Amino acid sequence: MSPSVRDQLRAFVDERDWSQFHSPENLAKSIAIEAGELLECFQWSDSGDVARVKEELADIATYCHLLAAGLGVDLDQVVLDKLEVTRAKYPVEKARGRSEKYDRLPD
Amino acid sequence: MSPSVRDQLRAFVDERDWSQFHSPENLAKSIAIEAGELLECFQWSDSGDVARVKEELADIATYCHLLAAGLGVDLDQVVLDKLEVTRAKYPVEKARGRSEKYDRLPD
Amino acid sequence: MSPSVRDQLRAFVDERDWSQFHSPENLAKSIAIEAGELLECFQWSDSGDVARVKEELADIATYCHLLAAGLGVDLDQVVLDKLEVTRAKYPVEKARGRSEKYDRLPD
Amino acid sequence: MSPSVRDQLRAFVDERDWSQFHSPENLAKSIAIEAGELLECFQWSDSGDVARVKEELADIATYCHLLAAGLGVDLDQVVLDKLEVTRAKYPVEKARGRSEKYDRLPD
Repeated sequence: MSPSVRDQLRAFVDERDWSQFHSPENLAKSIAIEAGELLECFQWSDSGDVARVKEELADIATYCHLLAAGLGVDLDQVVLDKLEVTRAKYPVEKARGRSEKYDRLPD
Repeated sequence: MSPSVRDQLRAFVDERDWSQFHSPENLAKSIAIEAGELLECFQWSDSGDVARVKEELADIATYCHLLAAGLGVDLDQVVLDKLEVTRAKYPVEKARGRSEKYDRLPD
Repeated sequence: MSPSVRDQLRAFVDERDWSQFHSPENLAKSIAIEAGELLECFQWSDSGDVARVKEELADIATYCHLLAAGLGVDLDQVVLDKLEVTRAKYPVEKARGRSEKYDRLPD
Repeated sequence: MSPSVRDQLRAFVDERDWSQFHSPENLAKSIAIEAGELLECFQWSDSGDVARVKEELADIATYCHLLAAGLGVDLDQVVLDKLEVTRAKYPVEKARGRSEKYDRLPD
């Protein structure tokens, strides 16, 4: 997330004095709630209304950012750190073209 | 998300030929699944193990990025667009210090 | 849920002194967590391993029962009460063969 | 779930010709969506509006029943089968008064 977006989110929250509600637990609940709303776009069909998908995606990304900020971590860095872990679990030669979980990949 | 992180995610997916699995519906399911894992950090307590919270947060942010990329939209822009909508629903003077949904805020 | 199953669940919880953890909020989180695990059976495919689906379904149903018990309500009665509401929102003549939400059904 | 409730749910679905939408995958998504709505009752607070909690709980229980019916299994039996598994993972003497996952319980 660019510093400018981060600053705008922080100002938005500060103006409303909402950081009092943003405990890690409440943000984790909020992400799950919004993930349910995103999933609702695909409840009975494999294609969802794009405008609504974008709105729900925005809500999730916003809460992710607020959680990262609350933990004092950079969301990009967290993603990169996890990517290293995932890279080790899913070597290219074993995982290419397969969707199985790492502990079910053939040797 | 910085262009560098985006490029690394794309390379990671391309090397494994995984974009075939990344339909918007599958990514929406994946976000909801990972949101459940994040929530599990807070299942019986309001404080969660920070290392695990960061890993789950990374998974969610990664799938959010992949969904945005699949829709051909910029995640930062989607967040900013939604922020305008939310700003209109929650004017500072009505929403300050309150956690109610916009349709239950006192006038 | 039959009285016998209900009694066995209650005994299971009582023996472990676990009702202290079963606040409505914690049970709501638990249902969402288990719903994510059920969804994981269908993450990359529309068919899931039946044995695992049954286990995750059992976890959700168990927490639903515990939440109903904690609220002092009968889960069957709650289902029937809601069925009346849903029946009114989705009259047969308007909703037959359609998956749209009630506020988007054609007149 | 009592046979009478099961029959009423089946009649409700049949009248609307809705079983075409009730693939296991769609029902798993539906359970996750409704679980998010239940969680929303507790988004910013540990106490939720009881009437709304009951409605969301009813939705989840309804979809659980439909999924069990679609799999040709009895939901009560599935709960009892899983209870045996859980009993073995959480022996009374190790698990009493503790909320840790079974693989983190002290010996």
